[in-house]
Amino acid sequence: MRALFKHHAGTELKFDAARPKPVCGARDVLIRVSKVGICGTDRHIWEWDTWAAGRIPVGIVTGHEFVGVIEEVGSAVTKYKPGLRVSAEGHTTAWLDYNARTGNAHIAADTRIIGVDRDGCFADYVCVPEENVWPVHPNIPDKVAAVLDPLGNAVHTVMAAGVSAKTVLITGVGIIGLMAVTVAKAAGASRIFCTDIDPRRLALAKKLGAVEVFDARQGDGWVGEVRKACRGDGPDVLLEMSGAASSFDLGFRALRNGGTAALLGIPSKPLVFDWNQHVVFKGATVLGINGRKMFETWYQMESLLLSGRLELDDIITHEMPIENFKKAFETMICGDGIKVVMSVNG
Amino acid sequence: MRALFKHHAGTELKFDAARPKPVCGARDVLIRVSKVGICGTDRHIWEWDTWAAGRIPVGIVTGHEFVGVIEEVGSAVTKYKPGLRVSAEGHTTAWLDYNARTGNAHIAADTRIIGVDRDGCFADYVCVPEENVWPVHPNIPDKVAAVLDPLGNAVHTVMAAGVSAKTVLITGVGIIGLMAVTVAKAAGASRIFCTDIDPRRLALAKKLGAVEVFDARQGDGWVGEVRKACRGDGPDVLLEMSGAASSFDLGFRALRNGGTAALLGIPSKPLVFDWNQHVVFKGATVLGINGRKMFETWYQMESLLLSGRLELDDIITHEMPIENFKKAFETMICGDGIKVVMSVNG
Amino acid sequence: MRALFKHHAGTELKFDAARPKPVCGARDVLIRVSKVGICGTDRHIWEWDTWAAGRIPVGIVTGHEFVGVIEEVGSAVTKYKPGLRVSAEGHTTAWLDYNARTGNAHIAADTRIIGVDRDGCFADYVCVPEENVWPVHPNIPDKVAAVLDPLGNAVHTVMAAGVSAKTVLITGVGIIGLMAVTVAKAAGASRIFCTDIDPRRLALAKKLGAVEVFDARQGDGWVGEVRKACRGDGPDVLLEMSGAASSFDLGFRALRNGGTAALLGIPSKPLVFDWNQHVVFKGATVLGINGRKMFETWYQMESLLLSGRLELDDIITHEMPIENFKKAFETMICGDGIKVVMSVNG
Amino acid sequence: MRALFKHHAGTELKFDAARPKPVCGARDVLIRVSKVGICGTDRHIWEWDTWAAGRIPVGIVTGHEFVGVIEEVGSAVTKYKPGLRVSAEGHTTAWLDYNARTGNAHIAADTRIIGVDRDGCFADYVCVPEENVWPVHPNIPDKVAAVLDPLGNAVHTVMAAGVSAKTVLITGVGIIGLMAVTVAKAAGASRIFCTDIDPRRLALAKKLGAVEVFDARQGDGWVGEVRKACRGDGPDVLLEMSGAASSFDLGFRALRNGGTAALLGIPSKPLVFDWNQHVVFKGATVLGINGRKMFETWYQMESLLLSGRLELDDIITHEMPIENFKKAFETMICGDGIKVVMSVNG
Repeated sequence: MRALFKHHAGTELKFDAARPKPVCGARDVLIRVSKVGICGTDRHIWEWDTWAAGRIPVGIVTGHEFVGVIEEVGSAVTKYKPGLRVSAEGHTTAWLDYNARTGNAHIAADTRIIGVDRDGCFADYVCVPEENVWPVHPNIPDKVAAVLDPLGNAVHTVMAAGVSAKTVLITGVGIIGLMAVTVAKAAGASRIFCTDIDPRRLALAKKLGAVEVFDARQGDGWVGEVRKACRGDGPDVLLEMSGAASSFDLGFRALRNGGTAALLGIPSKPLVFDWNQHVVFKGATVLGINGRKMFETWYQMESLLLSGRLELDDIITHEMPIENFKKAFETMICGDGIKVVMSVNG
Repeated sequence: MRALFKHHAGTELKFDAARPKPVCGARDVLIRVSKVGICGTDRHIWEWDTWAAGRIPVGIVTGHEFVGVIEEVGSAVTKYKPGLRVSAEGHTTAWLDYNARTGNAHIAADTRIIGVDRDGCFADYVCVPEENVWPVHPNIPDKVAAVLDPLGNAVHTVMAAGVSAKTVLITGVGIIGLMAVTVAKAAGASRIFCTDIDPRRLALAKKLGAVEVFDARQGDGWVGEVRKACRGDGPDVLLEMSGAASSFDLGFRALRNGGTAALLGIPSKPLVFDWNQHVVFKGATVLGINGRKMFETWYQMESLLLSGRLELDDIITHEMPIENFKKAFETMICGDGIKVVMSVNG
Repeated sequence: MRALFKHHAGTELKFDAARPKPVCGARDVLIRVSKVGICGTDRHIWEWDTWAAGRIPVGIVTGHEFVGVIEEVGSAVTKYKPGLRVSAEGHTTAWLDYNARTGNAHIAADTRIIGVDRDGCFADYVCVPEENVWPVHPNIPDKVAAVLDPLGNAVHTVMAAGVSAKTVLITGVGIIGLMAVTVAKAAGASRIFCTDIDPRRLALAKKLGAVEVFDARQGDGWVGEVRKACRGDGPDVLLEMSGAASSFDLGFRALRNGGTAALLGIPSKPLVFDWNQHVVFKGATVLGINGRKMFETWYQMESLLLSGRLELDDIITHEMPIENFKKAFETMICGDGIKVVMSVNG
Repeated sequence: MRALFKHHAGTELKFDAARPKPVCGARDVLIRVSKVGICGTDRHIWEWDTWAAGRIPVGIVTGHEFVGVIEEVGSAVTKYKPGLRVSAEGHTTAWLDYNARTGNAHIAADTRIIGVDRDGCFADYVCVPEENVWPVHPNIPDKVAAVLDPLGNAVHTVMAAGVSAKTVLITGVGIIGLMAVTVAKAAGASRIFCTDIDPRRLALAKKLGAVEVFDARQGDGWVGEVRKACRGDGPDVLLEMSGAASSFDLGFRALRNGGTAALLGIPSKPLVFDWNQHVVFKGATVLGINGRKMFETWYQMESLLLSGRLELDDIITHEMPIENFKKAFETMICGDGIKVVMSVNG
């Protein structure tokens, strides 16, 4: 089969037209891949940064955002049959520990990731455990179904914080931050404020429903403006999606007393943080967010998609065949594209 | 001053052009009334039904939905000054019991209601305790500010149930049910389904954002349709706003296992109810709703109004001077009007 | 193998010394049973009441409360190995629907029950799906591990309601109600009040930690006494465990405004219920409870058991070999015994 | 009247036998003080550290933990009458902002503190706003009623985190940490683990119900031990009560994935913090805690006290007349005493 894989301990990926098709285990499902999305994680792997060099086994097929059709099911599989259009949760677990058995498998101690720790979906076929399969509703097009994984990050963050009838500040509108704008609006946020350092992204955030956007390179004056616009108290909710030290500092400064901060952004190193002013005296609630809840987040995502309220057309900016993967990665890396989708079989 | 009052133990109200102005107590605020709304409760008082005959003291000025301007403050009042545009929560309490002191004053044991237990707002002036005052945001017009009380019922029901990214069934779209449609949509409901026995109200519910509406007089076939549209499981949330026995039965039948029902409708008598099928085996959560949370609901309402997402123009159908009160009540009672607002001083 | 089974469409069970051992499916686990508990459900089956006659297939091995040791695992089983001491959740599901995939499998649409819909544990061996297995902590003795299922009902009810630092009223102290007394105390209830119609059970409830107990046959005077003892407001929490119409009525009457009722008791038929006084005006929260959360409840139960705070010795009153099953059932049915455990292999 | 006041910009306090009695405002209540507690804040004021020098106005009467009897009520006071035994919440507010009006007045923007920003209770009389009064239940002795303020800190932290049926790690068992041990146990914590650097405090923590205590000066080996004792996952809840940098680091390291940390301790400066490992990847929830919820915390505290489960006798170690204030402060400062109570009038 065709596949994109990490061919050496260095940059880029290599296309292999004759990679062996994965063998489907007794409890696995083999999926013929239709479309895939390129994640920021895939970019780290492409660029072979420190994190990737320390984590990614050379030889692996990468990619974890996809939609496809079940081709074959393992001998012990009871839940699904060939022919079903599906996506899949990319975190695998043995489903044995406390979190795995109580609806929080995304933070089980033993989670591994498809396309990071085992062969992924940038290929004609991908193999996943039966428990990870997500049947895709017929009303959701392949282009969108290919990016349920990152959309799920946005949905998880927004729904964990709770935005219904609340004012929301989003610090950082990269791919997931932009998705969070449309998700938060659909989920009932009253007014959304955004910061970023890229004016194009800020303009798109506004188009997607933010009432005011601020260029974080212009100093901290925006903190006062956002607080003023929010009854003088500050926004009810902070969604931190940049990982930047200044966003942690200013985002918490803006947040109202008793507000909730949901943190998805990953700082590149430990930060100096004023717990007293930002959390203790403020009576703030802080939520660490990663992955997606299995499968609460996926159901919420389906519900939001079926509402017709999510605007993803301006976020999924490019679509091209997997053979054009170099251009696909370049389009994403240079910032011209936001979410880039590659077609594999469909 | 001018006032509408209950002049005898019988139907209608009487207009008095020379009612004495209320005397402002040390901790009270005297408000010059701009506009008022007519509530279903006022209709009961007008029609002098069994409830009204047992509860309403003859001689009282009625009405509890209003907006006005503070004219005078009592000698011990510290919070507000004359000139402020305000509405007010209609439930008064001594603020001494558990619920009153923990954010749930609306269910304090000693609550009394303005316009029911003491003189109300269908007059040039109304007097309320300082704690009940709600300063109205300048962006909210008088017409809307006059009906914050019933809008608050809808907001309380919707927010207590939690509708963000959820499917919602509303049984009964009278005044508050219709408000609940636009509130639920603004608060992030994914898809809204409604039932009622009045086709005009159902048509308006659809205009306000319901995806499907059902005439409850046409049997129980809608239960299966709603369940099917909601993943085969049934809606996540039931907002019961009719008080009808059949809505309790069919609404709970439609609700998905593990779903939440918020009950605002008031049955006219005890109902025969199948607890096993509707609640116990279903693992359902049921919430009794009355009034508005002081003042969580009011803040949520302000946030929703400032979002620009609430569509109230089709719900507040009529506005006329208080002198035309007979026409105002008739318009409401015959069903031509939904929410009728009367102008007093503005 | 030895087994107790429903030999005809009538009362009692029959002992079979040569029942074929169950065949272990690819995803199943075969367990050699050590001890079992007799449930109220088993009593219904024994007595062959209307419910049992309509639900139980003749020929089935009954029983669903047990502890044992894994003897064999199916060919596709990955999670467990022979030799592990385990109990199991008695509700099975295909793990495909919304509730099953979001931590609420106990209310999945397709749940079936071991010992009710398929062969159960009153036998030398029982076969259960791998997902249902619960490894038993070494500090928990077999006698207790045999009754985790009903203890889980009590834990689920108590934890769903939330009793920490709260006053609690338990209406009905049968087996699960008595367990709820010790669970609620261990889980942090401040003061517990109980009603029942059996003075022996009430005396035991008091021994287990209730501060006051009331004989429900003595009229409704207890409602006022409980309310008075709870700040005049009424208890924060009602745990309804009797299914009696009078308990629904009086329990809700006692409950404070804004309180929470968790309903585990199963009325024998629909009840006439005053929604206005009991739920709507009161702002009450009502929770339908059945089964146990998979597996949140099981973890909570383990945590409570390891705390050393649960007093089960007075509740598990009898233990006898499975060959004495007639005496075991009689002891339970006549009320001399509360929870009766039968030893099978250990 | 007699009073202890800050007589100069330096250490200690001075006793004044002829301080003028406070004048009771129209909405205030004048209380004759029975007993007072010495808080860590009072110690800062006594020692005149940087915080005190920057915040405390010279001349002020200090102290904010007390019980007494209402002597006089202001002309506009409606809620209470002379003769009532009361304590009071020490945070005052105008009750006008979002938090003040929604049950979170402890984090209102305008809070001021009795004994810090205005005259306090180390005197024969103290004056507080009517809204701050807390009637003390007759079953609660004066000695305990004098320290409801710090006990409330412990209750707020424990109840915000939620400890029912959970394992709990408390880092730092000073006065409030020790109170948190007995509160957590009474509120239903399954097992409690503690760290501190004072062996005497650790021994007392164990006496109060901790199952294991660790000397934080002995390295970080305790982290692994606590995690192992908690299913290998780590404790469900972290109560941070030390403000020490190492406790933040090790406490979060110990906490299980998906666990909850409630932070009451106040670091002396911003900390370097690894958000990724401690919060984001862990999916942790972090709660900033200060003061007490008005008045949810006070009701919870009363409920816990009336349960008879709080063991405060070993925590309130000393009681002496206010004239012996030097010895009282010294006893507290040297560590011989934990909570020191001074008798004023009773």
